[in-house]
Amino acid sequence: MSVPARRPVTVLGLGAMGRALAGALVAAGHPTTVWNRTPGRAAALTAAGATEAGTAAEAVAAGDLVVVCLLDDEVTRQVLALVAPVLAGRTLVNLTNGTPEQARRLAEWATSHGADHLDGGIMAVPAMIGQPGALILYSGPEDVFRAGRETLAAFGAAHWLGADPGAAALHDLALLAAMYGMFGGYLHAVAMIRAAGVPATGFTPLATDWLTAMLGALPALARGVDSGDHAADGSAVGMQAAAFGNLLAASREGGVSTSLLEPVRRLLDDAVRAGHGADGLSALVDLLRQS
Amino acid sequence: MSVPARRPVTVLGLGAMGRALAGALVAAGHPTTVWNRTPGRAAALTAAGATEAGTAAEAVAAGDLVVVCLLDDEVTRQVLALVAPVLAGRTLVNLTNGTPEQARRLAEWATSHGADHLDGGIMAVPAMIGQPGALILYSGPEDVFRAGRETLAAFGAAHWLGADPGAAALHDLALLAAMYGMFGGYLHAVAMIRAAGVPATGFTPLATDWLTAMLGALPALARGVDSGDHAADGSAVGMQAAAFGNLLAASREGGVSTSLLEPVRRLLDDAVRAGHGADGLSALVDLLRQS
Ligand SMILES: NC(=O)c1ccc[n+]([C@@H]2O[C@H](COP(=O)([O-])OP(=O)(O)OC[C@H]3O[C@@H](n4cnc5c(N)ncnc54)[C@H](OP(=O)(O)O)[C@@H]3O)[C@@H](O)[C@H]2O)c1
Ligand SMILES: NC(=O)c1ccc[n+]([C@@H]2O[C@H](COP(=O)([O-])OP(=O)(O)OC[C@H]3O[C@@H](n4cnc5c(N)ncnc54)[C@H](OP(=O)(O)O)[C@@H]3O)[C@@H](O)[C@H]2O)c1
Repeated sequence: MSVPARRPVTVLGLGAMGRALAGALVAAGHPTTVWNRTPGRAAALTAAGATEAGTAAEAVAAGDLVVVCLLDDEVTRQVLALVAPVLAGRTLVNLTNGTPEQARRLAEWATSHGADHLDGGIMAVPAMIGQPGALILYSGPEDVFRAGRETLAAFGAAHWLGADPGAAALHDLALLAAMYGMFGGYLHAVAMIRAAGVPATGFTPLATDWLTAMLGALPALARGVDSGDHAADGSAVGMQAAAFGNLLAASREGGVSTSLLEPVRRLLDDAVRAGHGADGLSALVDLLRQS
Repeated sequence: MSVPARRPVTVLGLGAMGRALAGALVAAGHPTTVWNRTPGRAAALTAAGATEAGTAAEAVAAGDLVVVCLLDDEVTRQVLALVAPVLAGRTLVNLTNGTPEQARRLAEWATSHGADHLDGGIMAVPAMIGQPGALILYSGPEDVFRAGRETLAAFGAAHWLGADPGAAALHDLALLAAMYGMFGGYLHAVAMIRAAGVPATGFTPLATDWLTAMLGALPALARGVDSGDHAADGSAVGMQAAAFGNLLAASREGGVSTSLLEPVRRLLDDAVRAGHGADGLSALVDLLRQS
């Protein structure tokens, strides 16, 4: 029985993430060609069966699907400018972190050079690539996603967010915003309890249980945001704005900076001033919109 | 067979939370006496079997364990000053939200009036009281907690944090800090995706899965904080500080205020300047300490 031939794939960029992506492709049996600005990063990959190309254009010429994972959008555009002549007929999958606008501009540019394009957002650290739990968000034409899906499954769960090329970047960055909020709150909490001599490791199971329970409040919050019906369920913004004073006071008592909390307090105060004192937290979202 | 007599309990304060607490005591079969500054809030409770006292002192005289749930520490001290002469020999359980210092001062005051004292932090909204999932944190002398435990179980899971009267308030406020961080991050994320026409309800399952996965990073973060070994696992602070620019840019593209994110960015930048560019997020905690 012959194994069906795997699609040849190219990876541009062998940073921490590019190496993980290329390794997953090799492991999945794809003929994999890699390129990196600075040579010498491909040793483990070539030992596993990948081919290192001398130039980015040579690398792209060897692949049907071209995965890009570079520092940022500026570097991505510089490197792609060098390979533009050989892009036509291939599928470009950009996994470099960027903004929705950057993704839309790159999609236009790729199309104008005869290439298909998907933009992706990697919701994982390099060690998670190819492991259960890794999630990659994609956006771009549905048929391009379907055609690439089997190959992209080497990285982790592939979740398509629609034809707008900016959708993956938007969701990626929105999820990062939520994560940084959670980590910021947790780090502040840890600073408070450590100031009282309690170790972070002792506090963390309680914090994890509590935050898990509080995640249960998000669906109702989301319904409030979408419907504009912000009726509170016993936790009105006005009551919370008042109780927030104890949080700031206790932080100061412990010598902990209130910098991470101040903008939340200002938002609660703004909501009370805007007449949302009896409403729930879903009323805050519109106050974050600036235009 | 006779049912063993339940301890008589008093509740001072019939706001949203005080009513829920008193209701849970009545439901658990305790002779329950209630008092509120403004009369007329006890109708449902008296119909269920509670007794409404005309003065706070009368209410306290009827109870062996006295639960206080008032607006704040100032109101609590005002009300308790009126009942000081009848406090001796009783157990005062203060569930009013306050700071660790306020809890320690009240513990001293209660002791000086011959009363036992526990301070508590309610990690629940009123509708959750007496239901599975309600958590109440307590601190104060262990024997007082043990003696009160069976009665306090009417409210929800009772978690004792040690003899320092301030410990419950400290943990309560630290957990609130973590929660406000998470909610702030989520509300920012929702503002971003709604600016692109995506409903909050559509985005929330993805956000919940992502935040649940990211909660898995907290134990390693905690170990980094406690040990001072901040070695990164492929997500160095320096890389994150750079990627953070995309998050701010995309927020601005969507007309979303960056106010909630700015202090996180400043903290990441501070960490890079302090030489933590190659470290993980656990290095940020010490930067929040001010003294
Ligand atoms: N690491 C993570 O946890 C993670 C998670 C999700 C998303 N991402 C995203 O994945 C992308 C790559 O991240 P990484 O962790 O792999 O970063 P990295 O380890 O810093 O690698 C950066 C890559 O960009 C290349 N590069 C930088 N400047 C260049 C230039 N002027 N010309 C050509 N190549 C250049 C580097 O090549 P040299 O070797 O020649 O410097 C290297 O291949 C970023 O957009 C990041 O936001 C990373
Ligand atoms: N609701 C929640 O989700 C929640 C969750 C956890 C913790 N807590 C904490 O529980 C405590 C009570 O909250 P709540 O939701 O019940 O608040 P609430 O509904 O606003 O009730 C406030 C209570 O304080 C009394 N009060 C206010 N000023 C007073 C004064 N000068 N003298 C005497 N009594 C006075 C009120 O009496 P009147 O009826 O006469 O105004 C009422 O009994 C707060 O510390 C809060 O932070 C609440």
